[in-house]
Amino acid sequence: MNIAYQKLVSLNKEISLLTSTASCLGWDQETYLPKKSIQHRADQLSYLSGKIHALNTGDDFRTKLEAAEKEAQQGEPNHTQTANLREWRHQLEKSNKLPQELVEKSSQCSSLAKAAWSDARQKNDFTIFAPHLTELVNLAKEKAELWGYEDEPYDALLGCYERGAKTADIANIFDKLRPQIIETARAAVGRSKSNPARQLIGPFPIDAQKRLNQEVAKSIGFDFDAGRVDTTTHPFCTTLGPQDIRLTTRYYEDDFTASLFGMMHEAGHGLYEQGLPASDFGLPSGNAVSLGIHESQSLLWEAHVGRSRGFWNKWFSRAQELFPQLRDWTVDEFLHTINQAQYSLIRVDADEATYDLHILLRFQIERQIINGEISVNDIPSVWNDHFKEMFGITPDSDTNGCLQDIHWSMDGLGYFPTYTLGNLNASQLFSAATKDTSIREAFEHADYSPLLSWMRANIHAHGSTHLPQDLMKLATGETTNPEYHLAHLKRRFLTES
Amino acid sequence: MNIAYQKLVSLNKEISLLTSTASCLGWDQETYLPKKSIQHRADQLSYLSGKIHALNTGDDFRTKLEAAEKEAQQGEPNHTQTANLREWRHQLEKSNKLPQELVEKSSQCSSLAKAAWSDARQKNDFTIFAPHLTELVNLAKEKAELWGYEDEPYDALLGCYERGAKTADIANIFDKLRPQIIETARAAVGRSKSNPARQLIGPFPIDAQKRLNQEVAKSIGFDFDAGRVDTTTHPFCTTLGPQDIRLTTRYYEDDFTASLFGMMHEAGHGLYEQGLPASDFGLPSGNAVSLGIHESQSLLWEAHVGRSRGFWNKWFSRAQELFPQLRDWTVDEFLHTINQAQYSLIRVDADEATYDLHILLRFQIERQIINGEISVNDIPSVWNDHFKEMFGITPDSDTNGCLQDIHWSMDGLGYFPTYTLGNLNASQLFSAATKDTSIREAFEHADYSPLLSWMRANIHAHGSTHLPQDLMKLATGETTNPEYHLAHLKRRFLTES
Repeated sequence: MNIAYQKLVSLNKEISLLTSTASCLGWDQETYLPKKSIQHRADQLSYLSGKIHALNTGDDFRTKLEAAEKEAQQGEPNHTQTANLREWRHQLEKSNKLPQELVEKSSQCSSLAKAAWSDARQKNDFTIFAPHLTELVNLAKEKAELWGYEDEPYDALLGCYERGAKTADIANIFDKLRPQIIETARAAVGRSKSNPARQLIGPFPIDAQKRLNQEVAKSIGFDFDAGRVDTTTHPFCTTLGPQDIRLTTRYYEDDFTASLFGMMHEAGHGLYEQGLPASDFGLPSGNAVSLGIHESQSLLWEAHVGRSRGFWNKWFSRAQELFPQLRDWTVDEFLHTINQAQYSLIRVDADEATYDLHILLRFQIERQIINGEISVNDIPSVWNDHFKEMFGITPDSDTNGCLQDIHWSMDGLGYFPTYTLGNLNASQLFSAATKDTSIREAFEHADYSPLLSWMRANIHAHGSTHLPQDLMKLATGETTNPEYHLAHLKRRFLTES
Repeated sequence: MNIAYQKLVSLNKEISLLTSTASCLGWDQETYLPKKSIQHRADQLSYLSGKIHALNTGDDFRTKLEAAEKEAQQGEPNHTQTANLREWRHQLEKSNKLPQELVEKSSQCSSLAKAAWSDARQKNDFTIFAPHLTELVNLAKEKAELWGYEDEPYDALLGCYERGAKTADIANIFDKLRPQIIETARAAVGRSKSNPARQLIGPFPIDAQKRLNQEVAKSIGFDFDAGRVDTTTHPFCTTLGPQDIRLTTRYYEDDFTASLFGMMHEAGHGLYEQGLPASDFGLPSGNAVSLGIHESQSLLWEAHVGRSRGFWNKWFSRAQELFPQLRDWTVDEFLHTINQAQYSLIRVDADEATYDLHILLRFQIERQIINGEISVNDIPSVWNDHFKEMFGITPDSDTNGCLQDIHWSMDGLGYFPTYTLGNLNASQLFSAATKDTSIREAFEHADYSPLLSWMRANIHAHGSTHLPQDLMKLATGETTNPEYHLAHLKRRFLTES
């Protein structure tokens, strides 16, 4: 029974051997590759991605999928089988709708755009980047038309990162969020200013940071027999196999919390990947469902766990052992330091209280560009006006303003909203999980295995069998609702610290 | 012109993208792979090796090779093209002569044999390993018959590791070597015993060892922009791309010379790989020619350079800086310590003076087994008798005797003689290179770039375009001749130290 379905599963398992091989090459490139070998690595990866693309879109895949769909109509497929068939059909159609020339043009354009973006940033000259971004925007619009959309072209771009999401729904959520988060951020920043925190003073030896991070990662459930941590300039989490999840972080001698929270963030992604059904590796049911859900897992462990009082009640004494300069600090002082709110021009430096402002700004601009309401040349002034309105300050340069992020140059229009979705989902999932008083109590005593078990059962185990918003509903009783995150921010920044 | 040849080159370049990808997976497995991911890695490697095998032996390869051969007959191929065609033809015939069932049976048998060998070693019970070895010997004989040979079946096995080598030639060389090396070893061991050396006393901190090794590797010409050094239990050198050569070594806190000489050995392999023509990567002309030549390069840098007076005249003061316990040592004392001769039951612990005795013993036994002159069950007694004769001592156990090496269990019959070939070639090449007085003088002042340039020009640049013995003749004026190595050993162990 399910013979046609099983054949399709085998083909996808085969493809997953190649994609996970490419992941290994990619991981090695970021961590250990000698610099003269970059061209050979690019040749290897381009060869593999050609093979993977051919298998994913070839006649064999189509024929096997059609046979399995036919079989499913005649039989009684279970939920997982139905979901996998749905996702495979979606992937095949999506990839077949773009002509090869457009894919290649996009990739070439993005290569040039990345170089131009870097140059423009260095020279603080948006006009260097503008023609490249204009072309990327036009290509994105072209792709959106080919993929198709219900309400507006931005839907098609957003859908690349957040399966099933609609722009209007996101806009609706963000509109609710906007006035309250502006107000909460303003109050939090004011409070932090009027009550300055002690500053951490290095050096915090890197070996000691590594030891602390390792102990913390273990304690929250990261399995080092099925993963590891390395060092890179840009931290990431990548999956090389069903039991091979690799994180990276970076170390600063003057602030151990940067590597610790960075590692907890990536470990959050890693716990999700380690919790996906290993036997379904390479199938939609064994894959993470969306960026907005993935980011909810990383933020849960970084922000809700890592910046909480219960966590530091347990771990602060260990930090004091490793870093003697902390010995005359109290846990309260330390919590106050790590939970300061401050406006920053730069998104990646932003704290929890102000982070979403950066995303709301980008979403609004992206949507207007794609809908043709503003042109690429308008971006610097639109950016600065909105920034002034939301943050009360004006960027001192485009380099610290609309040129700060790499995403657009990487053809990533539609990506940004998933960061805030991640924040909202994290707070909502945390709130739902801790309704169970045993989870709440364990959490307050820094025992996170009940919380992890809840995420395993309610999020990880489902893979991509539910669409993201269906999964949120299943797990929490409602689709993404910004109230939980607003409540979390108010509690953390206006009540607790 | 050469259109058919160029098509064959393209196919081989494509195959090399896959083989170097497999090398990356293999390297990662030995260095950083999380332990639960071993099965997935095995699945990936088996998938890739299937693809590589299919490409190497498929109709497309055969058709392209035939077309290129035809084209060559009608044109005027250069030396490299002729050599590549010769090697491709050899590879294709060799791999097509074995039926798939035999290859699979061999691989299964070896998997079981490795487990049995490990068990037999632990229990010091040869009878646990004997039936597996018997089967491996029978399979090896079967393969030899299918591959074909001129004089005796052992030729076919030897040829897997040393292209074009004949058993009778090796036996002839080894017969010349035998009486003299037995005598030299005896004298060297006696001399060392009568003049005991100072013992190194740890701890030698591992970070300091790494620093010294890195500086030494750089100074002998290893390019860290096209390679790196990592840590593993079993040191090795592997090639992940034309400019991506990775070495490993292991560290002991009580003896810094183990990691240093181990690293110099692997760096010697690495220098060869870094010196192969990068533009011919994946073609025979871009590949190392044989194990006996490869090992000559590793031994040149480990033994001729690393254990020489000139080397330590330069480096001993740096070692004293890093390891203060050496400060009251003289260079002479240190040289005497690192160039001691002593009989060892274990091959991998053997010093230069006694190492080849271990190989002569193994070659003799392997040849007799394959020729049916002795049976597998005779091995323990034959081993011990020969050992007594050559070393003057009898192994205390089979674990420390005929069960010590992994090679036979890995289906590696025919491999051992290449170690001694490597020793002989190293001495012969070193002697030929240092006939040039400028190379000799630079060598004595620990400036090795002229020596490396000579190896680059006379060995590395040729890839596999000459058969190993032709290459030796081209580089030194004669085929492998044991006199140079005997002279080197006498100088080092009976004159100098």
